[in-house]
Amino acid sequence: MEFSSKLLERAVNEMSQLPGIGKRTALRLVLHLLRQPKEQTQVLSQALTNMRNDIKFCKSCNNISDVDVCEICSNPKRNHNIICIVEDVRDVMAIENTSSFKGLYHVLGGKISPMDGIGPHDLNIESLVNKVKQGTVKELIFALSSTMEGDTTNFYIFKQIQDYNIITSTIARGISVGDELEYADEITLGRSIVNRIPFETTLKL
Amino acid sequence: MEFSSKLLERAVNEMSQLPGIGKRTALRLVLHLLRQPKEQTQVLSQALTNMRNDIKFCKSCNNISDVDVCEICSNPKRNHNIICIVEDVRDVMAIENTSSFKGLYHVLGGKISPMDGIGPHDLNIESLVNKVKQGTVKELIFALSSTMEGDTTNFYIFKQIQDYNIITSTIARGISVGDELEYADEITLGRSIVNRIPFETTLKL
Repeated sequence: MEFSSKLLERAVNEMSQLPGIGKRTALRLVLHLLRQPKEQTQVLSQALTNMRNDIKFCKSCNNISDVDVCEICSNPKRNHNIICIVEDVRDVMAIENTSSFKGLYHVLGGKISPMDGIGPHDLNIESLVNKVKQGTVKELIFALSSTMEGDTTNFYIFKQIQDYNIITSTIARGISVGDELEYADEITLGRSIVNRIPFETTLKL
Repeated sequence: MEFSSKLLERAVNEMSQLPGIGKRTALRLVLHLLRQPKEQTQVLSQALTNMRNDIKFCKSCNNISDVDVCEICSNPKRNHNIICIVEDVRDVMAIENTSSFKGLYHVLGGKISPMDGIGPHDLNIESLVNKVKQGTVKELIFALSSTMEGDTTNFYIFKQIQDYNIITSTIARGISVGDELEYADEITLGRSIVNRIPFETTLKL
């Protein structure tokens, strides 16, 4: 791509560093900003810089927060004995949206993935194990994605904490609510039969 | 979407103002920036702000430029008698990439589109007509997209300049090089037959 302006070229190059944004999309976005009032670009740049410089990660669960200990961890109404282990901040948001969980979270920051060069020490596993050692945790819920990397991470953590007397569970895998059985994949359908639940429990939902 | 941080929420909201970027994509992009070194966000913000504040539009053709008159308009080797009329800066880049045109450009900044509230006075048509009035222009090439809005804009400009003694032309429409005839749409194929060219001219390419 030939640019008639170095300033334009630099903006497009920086924008196309973002994942999923190619040069053409970056050019489209940058030209859009050029057509909008200067304030919009100012506000966007400021919001990004402020976010990157001032955002904190909760000292306890590693969730994104504006304060040292996040709202969830510092909320006395939540059950501090149950910890749900998730990969990512987005997973916390997704589970919070369901309003079905009143415990705390622990954000690992990824999954063990030797292919991508991510080992256990790149994730927040040690702080999780320390929480278990302190003895206040009664149940750990594994809520990682059910991929090979997710399963490996689950197993690695399980090995570290199996000697402590706590309950471990994993979120239920099965047919999505509203889905047709005939279109479900075999593994999910198979697991949903093996892990069937008493019918009466569905009456309470 | 519930955010655990106001800073994150603001960054996502500003990012999702960009066209084609929804809240989820914006969150993905912003979380990516959080995982990268602070410098990347700094450099991106700076590039966008500098671009928006310091970029100029060429006084002659309205193309994006770092100087008052763009490199194309100030190049004495180019043919200043032929002007190619395009909608957008991206069209200039596309035509420049072909290396097939050695004249100048005139960027309208859009098409006449009453549906979107864009009239002739929102576009750089007056400055084009003034160029024609000054008498140095010998040929105008219409290179707008062949939509109803493009055709309307072409016709509006043509009406303004038809009394001056200049050649007007439009870029050739036809079957793309390498395309199979059977998959071409009827209008394009029809036009390509009506506007057929002497076979000998293809031998020179």
